[in-house]
Amino acid sequence: MSIEQFVARSEGQWRSMRSAHALAFRQFEDVISTIKIERLAINNQDVVDYLAGQSILPDTISSPFQMTWQAESDWEPDDATAVSQGTCILIPIPETERTGQLLRSKGYAESESAVSSYSFLDDGTFILKTAYSQSIAEERIWFLSEHVRCRSSVLRTSEGSGILQTSFSSEVRRIEA
Amino acid sequence: MSIEQFVARSEGQWRSMRSAHALAFRQFEDVISTIKIERLAINNQDVVDYLAGQSILPDTISSPFQMTWQAESDWEPDDATAVSQGTCILIPIPETERTGQLLRSKGYAESESAVSSYSFLDDGTFILKTAYSQSIAEERIWFLSEHVRCRSSVLRTSEGSGILQTSFSSEVRRIEA
Repeated sequence: MSIEQFVARSEGQWRSMRSAHALAFRQFEDVISTIKIERLAINNQDVVDYLAGQSILPDTISSPFQMTWQAESDWEPDDATAVSQGTCILIPIPETERTGQLLRSKGYAESESAVSSYSFLDDGTFILKTAYSQSIAEERIWFLSEHVRCRSSVLRTSEGSGILQTSFSSEVRRIEA
Repeated sequence: MSIEQFVARSEGQWRSMRSAHALAFRQFEDVISTIKIERLAINNQDVVDYLAGQSILPDTISSPFQMTWQAESDWEPDDATAVSQGTCILIPIPETERTGQLLRSKGYAESESAVSSYSFLDDGTFILKTAYSQSIAEERIWFLSEHVRCRSSVLRTSEGSGILQTSFSSEVRRIEA
């Protein structure tokens, strides 16, 4: 699987069931949300502006896309820290057929941008690693069928091997009427 | 990773947080349980008896083990169908370094035995596929660290590509006092 194929298969609207596991506290958090993934043109103005700001040549990128999510429900409505909606632009920079970098811009908030490295396992599973200042996130995404995909994530502390949280999402494509 | 290494790393007691997603009903089920995995000797009597019953030569098997589980809690106590405890014997029959079969005996209930095929992805992720009369189960297990592993599962209908349920478990090793 190449990043172009992966983005093409991911495009669309998905209904996500997500369970997060806080390991130290043995707490579950279950959320249903809608995720929209949309490919962007290479000359999309937001993409062009972001690349210019980062001094990245446009001909190194491939298949930029926008991801938007909105929670439909939250089993813990008193959890004010839960992010219930958002949008970001994601820009792959392939290095080899199966590896590369993924730039993420949180819309206009440059301070929240992130650089991830990605790779594909031999069965097409997509692996994404992101280092933040205090933690390291690893995601894996794999397709069960054309219309169902799974996403798991792990959040580790930057120092040592402490694992803070895992999560798992089942994403089912929403077919437009 | 070989099946011998995988079984050796898995041996011990684990506390599991498991979330199941019933996709058609958008229902979550969260359960905490304890799982015990114990390697068995090749000449363990239960193993020898099972192999004799199946006409399998003992020198084709590797690293047999016993798995026992018990739910500590269930968020849906009125769900009488939930299996809250059980034990089984698992017997790997390697075919290549990274593939083979896994026989499962549900204790003394021969009728519930199953034959699965297993393989390892290039990052060591263990993949297990089991065909039942009405459904096909696919599990994947991967280690996040020496003491934390993840397990995901998918249950499909035998005919077509209908996906009935997914699940995800975070398993943390219980260190004996």
